[in-house]
Amino acid sequence: MGIVTADIGITLDGFGAAADQSLEHPFGSIDEHRLHSWMFEHGDDNAAEVAAIVDAGAFVMGRNMFDPGRGDWDLSWRGWWGEDPPYHAPVFVLTHHAREPLPMEGGTTFHFVTDGLASALAQARAAAGERDVAVAGGASTINACLAAGVLDELRLHVAPFVAGLATGSRMFDGVGPLGLEPVAARHTPHVTHLTYRRA
Amino acid sequence: MGIVTADIGITLDGFGAAADQSLEHPFGSIDEHRLHSWMFEHGDDNAAEVAAIVDAGAFVMGRNMFDPGRGDWDLSWRGWWGEDPPYHAPVFVLTHHAREPLPMEGGTTFHFVTDGLASALAQARAAAGERDVAVAGGASTINACLAAGVLDELRLHVAPFVAGLATGSRMFDGVGPLGLEPVAARHTPHVTHLTYRRA
Repeated sequence: MGIVTADIGITLDGFGAAADQSLEHPFGSIDEHRLHSWMFEHGDDNAAEVAAIVDAGAFVMGRNMFDPGRGDWDLSWRGWWGEDPPYHAPVFVLTHHAREPLPMEGGTTFHFVTDGLASALAQARAAAGERDVAVAGGASTINACLAAGVLDELRLHVAPFVAGLATGSRMFDGVGPLGLEPVAARHTPHVTHLTYRRA
Repeated sequence: MGIVTADIGITLDGFGAAADQSLEHPFGSIDEHRLHSWMFEHGDDNAAEVAAIVDAGAFVMGRNMFDPGRGDWDLSWRGWWGEDPPYHAPVFVLTHHAREPLPMEGGTTFHFVTDGLASALAQARAAAGERDVAVAGGASTINACLAAGVLDELRLHVAPFVAGLATGSRMFDGVGPLGLEPVAARHTPHVTHLTYRRA
């Protein structure tokens, strides 16, 4: 059986997004270009880490990552990733609002899970078979996984700037005292990759 | 001329100390053993980083690092480090309470600076000559240096646990938006060393 992994891009002060997320500004007032330039502009420097993000048999994702800042569904919204999203596997989206599964091209199907994280993880494990389950974010979903003790490997991609926010979606908020094991650290000019395992 | 460096041990969520610092618990309710075991118990794994901390011609230190949680001086208090502190150079302690210089063995003299960070740094630069000036912490003093744009190199030593505090002395608090340049990242079993330079 695979393990449960999580990847997230954060600032030096731990923010994955500002509080004021919207469809126009999915990361709110945080500078999303600066947060993710290592991936979109300097992918050659970070090829292994970029590839690992989507190397899983199933995914779990918070609603705000699929569709930030909204309540009921606008059924015309099919995610950020175009008709062929990079997941190529089932993606279980945590939400309070039921919606029919949304099959996309290339093997990605978005499933909308209304009965909580444990259910989403169980469904993802069943779908992944021998492969890993990847928690795709955001920070609050990953924090919930850490607090629940269900995450095996956490991969932080720290962009080298301080957001300077008062509030937002911040790694480790609400996780409580928790030990992890450092297993990798690597920097490139636009990001520092830090990998931790369950202690 | 040397550069201005800073070293600090922090948790995964960025805390250098809890808010409830005292002479009995200089890091407050944070687990100081866990925060610094990389230095005191596993120093062989981290020899270069430990040695670099005191490789400077002069030091600047916040009052809470010399004598946490107190106002007026108890003149019998001579710091944590015994009669021969590891600095072997002048240490400029930021405080609101004047005190005569305190010469120790081995070349360390604590000077108590009441006219602010810029003055302490100027005195430290003058004393350091060609060598570096090291800001010894805590987080609020280092944050003040970052905010003032006077820090050339920041060395974070991230202990692999989440403190889970609501408040405390936290890296990057109040620094505001700020870019840095990642120049090194290395992990050992008990700490991850991250070095950043002025962008």
